[in-house]
Amino acid sequence: MSDRATSFSVSLPDWVAGEIRDVPAHLPTAQERMALVHRLADRNHREGSGGPFAALVAERDTGRVLAVGVNVVLLSGLSSVHAEVVALSLAQQVAGNWDLGAAGRPATELVVNWRPCTMCLGATLWSGVGHLVIAGEGPECEQLTGFDEGPVREDWRDQFAARGLTIESDVLRDGAIRTFGEYGSGSPLVYNARQGNR
Amino acid sequence: MSDRATSFSVSLPDWVAGEIRDVPAHLPTAQERMALVHRLADRNHREGSGGPFAALVAERDTGRVLAVGVNVVLLSGLSSVHAEVVALSLAQQVAGNWDLGAAGRPATELVVNWRPCTMCLGATLWSGVGHLVIAGEGPECEQLTGFDEGPVREDWRDQFAARGLTIESDVLRDGAIRTFGEYGSGSPLVYNARQGNR
Repeated sequence: MSDRATSFSVSLPDWVAGEIRDVPAHLPTAQERMALVHRLADRNHREGSGGPFAALVAERDTGRVLAVGVNVVLLSGLSSVHAEVVALSLAQQVAGNWDLGAAGRPATELVVNWRPCTMCLGATLWSGVGHLVIAGEGPECEQLTGFDEGPVREDWRDQFAARGLTIESDVLRDGAIRTFGEYGSGSPLVYNARQGNR
Repeated sequence: MSDRATSFSVSLPDWVAGEIRDVPAHLPTAQERMALVHRLADRNHREGSGGPFAALVAERDTGRVLAVGVNVVLLSGLSSVHAEVVALSLAQQVAGNWDLGAAGRPATELVVNWRPCTMCLGATLWSGVGHLVIAGEGPECEQLTGFDEGPVREDWRDQFAARGLTIESDVLRDGAIRTFGEYGSGSPLVYNARQGNR
């Protein structure tokens, strides 16, 4: 068994660099951060990189953006590289630390255009970010896009709180709904491997 | 915002190649597959690559191993690269497909040395594997290692079944307990970013 694959790489799509070139390095408000996430999510599915999802990691106090991420499942051929995993991984690489909440570091937050799926809720818990900002939650995402968000516990907010994470919801909610609606009105490829059977 | 990180890479530790060199390309039984997982998990924490966790993806009928993975959180500095994510990603790279259950492909299974954490249960669902083989489940892993496995739904088996995945448990359970016990008897670094607060 000597010929196994030993590494994999994940890259942002080339178009992201152009999309963020004129964005300030600091985005002081949650609304500004989410507006960028919406722009990236909307373009991501049109470019065919992956689903209509984007995320970023920012320092809470300064608004400095450590990393942006988009869903690159289609681009990479890897099912786990949802936008949250990409943004968190890139931020950890920038920080040089698997713990974005390590002592002595500025507090960080993950900003994403809907409540993360069950995998990404776990990825958020393990990442060290102390705060999650979402555009919304509820059935609209699954209904409009066809994606399966997976088996999330009803008490997920309590589970976050028990681990010291805070949550802010309904930040530019309409923008998320608009992106999901436009995605779903096409002929979307739902790449949940189980094809969204629920 | 032009200087953001745009890619990250994940590699197996160098010692894995030596560990698997003499292993047959096909491992016909679940016990043989789990025995390899236990060997990798046990060595992984001793080498300092990450926690005492390993996984592999195999074709169910032939036992051909598509990829092995170990937890490389410490080696990579990335919190999401648990053994399951590494094995699934490498297998998808080998397959050239984000869906390990795509039509026309041999059925595949994920073999791992305990019930996956909440993140990795999601990663399993989205990967396309049709079968999950675990050494066991229950509180022993958290109790012996100090790791937080996260908020898993009580009905996770039903959730898997609803999406067409089957589960086989208690395969070489004692081996997992032994590895966790030896890990915990040292001075383990629990790298859950929230330090296992539950």
